[in-house]
Amino acid sequence: MSVAQQSPPHRAVVEHLVRQAVYARLGKSLPRAAAAPSPLVVNVSARHCHLTQEAVESLFGKGRQLQVHKWLYQEGQFAAKEAVTLIGPRSRVISNLRILGPCRSLNQVELAYTDGIALGFELPHRISGDIQGTLGCMLMGPAGFFEMQQGVIRAMRHVHMHLTDAEFYGVKAGEAMKLRIGGPCGITLDKLLVRVDKSFKLEVHIDTDEGNACNLQPDTPCELLK
Amino acid sequence: MSVAQQSPPHRAVVEHLVRQAVYARLGKSLPRAAAAPSPLVVNVSARHCHLTQEAVESLFGKGRQLQVHKWLYQEGQFAAKEAVTLIGPRSRVISNLRILGPCRSLNQVELAYTDGIALGFELPHRISGDIQGTLGCMLMGPAGFFEMQQGVIRAMRHVHMHLTDAEFYGVKAGEAMKLRIGGPCGITLDKLLVRVDKSFKLEVHIDTDEGNACNLQPDTPCELLK
Repeated sequence: MSVAQQSPPHRAVVEHLVRQAVYARLGKSLPRAAAAPSPLVVNVSARHCHLTQEAVESLFGKGRQLQVHKWLYQEGQFAAKEAVTLIGPRSRVISNLRILGPCRSLNQVELAYTDGIALGFELPHRISGDIQGTLGCMLMGPAGFFEMQQGVIRAMRHVHMHLTDAEFYGVKAGEAMKLRIGGPCGITLDKLLVRVDKSFKLEVHIDTDEGNACNLQPDTPCELLK
Repeated sequence: MSVAQQSPPHRAVVEHLVRQAVYARLGKSLPRAAAAPSPLVVNVSARHCHLTQEAVESLFGKGRQLQVHKWLYQEGQFAAKEAVTLIGPRSRVISNLRILGPCRSLNQVELAYTDGIALGFELPHRISGDIQGTLGCMLMGPAGFFEMQQGVIRAMRHVHMHLTDAEFYGVKAGEAMKLRIGGPCGITLDKLLVRVDKSFKLEVHIDTDEGNACNLQPDTPCELLK
């Protein structure tokens, strides 16, 4: 069995702990951001796909299980070693499309608008999982092809949160928040969809277009606003 | 002499005129946006370069003048028929890089961060014209090569405005404004640099990363804020 790459803790996690320790040591009350139950982690999701076990076997061979390349911030989620080639409806190609594991019950490809322009069609802007009526694509792996009838989308920007986070920010699943991103080319993202689950850790997912628009770096200050 | 493509008036220009006419007909006072001296035009600048006449001649031949492909919104500015191939410092290539005319006294390439990632180096984020100490590139045209010692940047988002616009918004050249962009994946761009000149028409220039982050379309509502 291969050893998966262990990520060091996210900078936001370390900062959150240090900030809480410093305020405690100084005997001062915590400012609001530091008093939050969780650090605010903002990650850029590069284009990727979620696949069923059936699709993985069509692409990589009978009985094949996804291998962990790198664990993601959400518990149990990982970037797989396996990647596929996507052939779009106009025969244009994106190679090295990363698969995220574990397998799901639905096949879905999440791209940025820049990718959609390269493929030559307009991506529908959907909540992850809502793929009814969207265009599909052909995926190519070392063991064969897999045809997706639908499921190529730009995923709506969203924030995963635990129930304690939702309570702290005063929001409910399905509501919208804003994310203010600082730095020399800062932006504020509106309509950040709130997703709540007891298995979730507080994490904002934006795509590469959004990340590049504001040049998001590990030390870029971010603020979650209602 | 060839006939240049004439652009129809920008949607924002037509809307501004219609709005003013409708309020006048109704005998009502204008809301603030409609009372502005100019319509708010927001355009996405795709990657492009500005070249000296010397560079154009190295690339396209002695005595060659840039041909107008399409007039831009700013008076006298145009997208040229001529395009070049850019070879970056890591030998990666961007083909069909459009030249904007007329020629300038400075060679400058303006790319989005997505392009910088494709070329394999981090673009400096600069005010247009401020290229001291930036990396250069090689340009290739049908008649030869031209080496730029420096000048490959990501241009800061900015708004061109006439003196009357600056007065209306209460801003001065060099100050920063915000641009709120609506729609299903709306964003607010901070640190929009104000550029004022009596030859300028009110126009915001954002790059393709910013345009794709919010899926800017001709009918997307935009608001300029101090």
